Amino acid sequence: MTDRPDDRHLAAALDALLTRIGPGDPAAARAAAARHAQLTKPPGSLGRLEALGVQLAAVSGRVPPPVPGAPAVAVFAADHGVVAEGVTPWPREVTAQMVANFCGGGAAINVLARRVGARLVVVDVGVATPLPDHPSLVRRPVGPGTANLRREPAMSRSSARRAVLAGADTAAELIAGGADLLVGGDMGIGNTTPSAAVISALTGRSPAEVTGRGTGIDDAMLAHKTDVVADALARCGRSVRIDATAGSAHDTAGDPDDAVDVLAELGGFEIGALAGFFLQAAASRVPVIVDGVIALAGACLAARAEPAVLHHLIAGHRSTEPGATAALEWLGLEPLVDLGLRLGEGSGAALAIPLVQSAAAVLGEMATFADAGIVAGPG
Amino acid sequence: MTDRPDDRHLAAALDALLTRIGPGDPAAARAAAARHAQLTKPPGSLGRLEALGVQLAAVSGRVPPPVPGAPAVAVFAADHGVVAEGVTPWPREVTAQMVANFCGGGAAINVLARRVGARLVVVDVGVATPLPDHPSLVRRPVGPGTANLRREPAMSRSSARRAVLAGADTAAELIAGGADLLVGGDMGIGNTTPSAAVISALTGRSPAEVTGRGTGIDDAMLAHKTDVVADALARCGRSVRIDATAGSAHDTAGDPDDAVDVLAELGGFEIGALAGFFLQAAASRVPVIVDGVIALAGACLAARAEPAVLHHLIAGHRSTEPGATAALEWLGLEPLVDLGLRLGEGSGAALAIPLVQSAAAVLGEMATFADAGIVAGPG
Repeated sequence: MTDRPDDRHLAAALDALLTRIGPGDPAAARAAAARHAQLTKPPGSLGRLEALGVQLAAVSGRVPPPVPGAPAVAVFAADHGVVAEGVTPWPREVTAQMVANFCGGGAAINVLARRVGARLVVVDVGVATPLPDHPSLVRRPVGPGTANLRREPAMSRSSARRAVLAGADTAAELIAGGADLLVGGDMGIGNTTPSAAVISALTGRSPAEVTGRGTGIDDAMLAHKTDVVADALARCGRSVRIDATAGSAHDTAGDPDDAVDVLAELGGFEIGALAGFFLQAAASRVPVIVDGVIALAGACLAARAEPAVLHHLIAGHRSTEPGATAALEWLGLEPLVDLGLRLGEGSGAALAIPLVQSAAAVLGEMATFADAGIVAGPG
Repeated sequence: MTDRPDDRHLAAALDALLTRIGPGDPAAARAAAARHAQLTKPPGSLGRLEALGVQLAAVSGRVPPPVPGAPAVAVFAADHGVVAEGVTPWPREVTAQMVANFCGGGAAINVLARRVGARLVVVDVGVATPLPDHPSLVRRPVGPGTANLRREPAMSRSSARRAVLAGADTAAELIAGGADLLVGGDMGIGNTTPSAAVISALTGRSPAEVTGRGTGIDDAMLAHKTDVVADALARCGRSVRIDATAGSAHDTAGDPDDAVDVLAELGGFEIGALAGFFLQAAASRVPVIVDGVIALAGACLAARAEPAVLHHLIAGHRSTEPGATAALEWLGLEPLVDLGLRLGEGSGAALAIPLVQSAAAVLGEMATFADAGIVAGPG
């Protein structure tokens, strides 16, 4: 690839974003843990809500952390050249039809976002079919869908950086508009294939370990899809050994160039946008909930670029896709909800919003033993 | 026990309650499942939210089921004679102190109920310490705490029936006041011990398999607590073999007399009240969310009395107590939330309220493929 002036500008913008991401506030985390020990309950009895409250304190730098009252969901939509390989039974046009459904308020994520009072925006980062204007639709297209990653790079490195920055800009805009808790979702027919490829390349897990049935495919199509992922990895020299012992994003220093390379070779525009969305949330110290396998592929890219992003990510749910569990393990994240979802759109992450709000609320609103006049604690 | 006129009256009231519990509406369940297949998502992709929506349709007899907008939490509080055996490090007086904390709004369940707009009532079904009046406190005392179940029956059969009916009356009153989704919680220092005993007696699991650390006890106290449970079971001829293959409540016909017998010998007033709370919710066809190990002991008693109650119960969460998992398996219930909680009060069930509401909302509010003009579905 040529290093054109435009590329240098994009790389500089991405570098500037990454340098703003820190580990959160360890003193706030310690103070939150100390406060939890004084609240009117046996120590540790709120389980993972306690750790989540401590994380929210670290992210915000405040004890107790504010209860997020203005959640926002961004659904990033894009098309994928790899659908030409027959990796999904759904026609490519369904991406645009579902964007229209999001705009019309009829999709699952609309219902779940309304339940929790979350703002919802749909971001076109590369849908192939022309989309009519709509107040909920934000246009940040990187291109009219990716190329076929089995045969060639999915996108240029310049487009990869553009996709990441489109997601970052979306997060920045939502935060500027008052959002204090973010959810990133996806829509893109065929997008479990690039997600599996990205997760395989980064975690070192084999294509067979991370490729799943997506929206529901039969054994023959799954075998073929796994071959497509393996071919794509081989094409760009990213093949991984079978049964690799996965390392952890925490173990490594960030490598933004490698993250861009993996995204360009194997990714999708919405996957890159989700990576940028997570990076910007972390830079802005706004907690962000990660959805299923597509969002997790984006989270893996974000962690490859800057591992400190992990301090700010909350895993929303465990999708049934095997790549989701591989990514969660590599990232060292434990999801809040495990209800067998495999829909995407941000649906699993949206279900976790009340849990995140509750984790902050108990830290802020529960009485201490001293407040309640319970002198003894365990006697 | 003598069969006094008062006992016959209580038994008749309980029988009348049980005869009102049916299996829900199978036609509504079928219609809800058919509707889920038409909604704009891959079939089955909302995982367990879909089964939950189908259950809510069966319980209510309506498709789509109404979205419960008026949840209510009842926390049943009582004391336990078995604390004399040294099964918990917390002084018995903490039961009353925590009742005051509930009334003051400072406990975890207060925070979690407020988050979801749930009404909260605290029901004294047998706290030993005198309690001051408070608008949130409902007085339905069965007695000033139970007897020591290691040495003698925890309560008379008459008191057992009174406890069950106190819970049923609470549910009926909340439903009459407009509640359309119920959560039952507990407070009672020492109450994981009778819960373990009840669960062991009904599921056939050994004391070692169902006795846990409760609010947090050390190995020595856990060993002693397990012995206390075993002694109690032996005293009343309810000892179970080690590593029993647990049957299921579904397999058996109801046996209300046996449920009363187990409650009288081994239970607690709040455990009996929770059983009655669940039975009344089922009779009124109002969905009810079961909390952790104490509520699950009540659910086991309810299912022993009338297995059809299970069609109406929603398992809220998986407590870390081993008895909770034993009870869930015996009841055939899979919990919605698994966050390592072990607090009681209804806290885990309260966290599941938004999930139940969302399950109803997606069935009612999502567009169908026809609505959205997506003709193909998978092509």
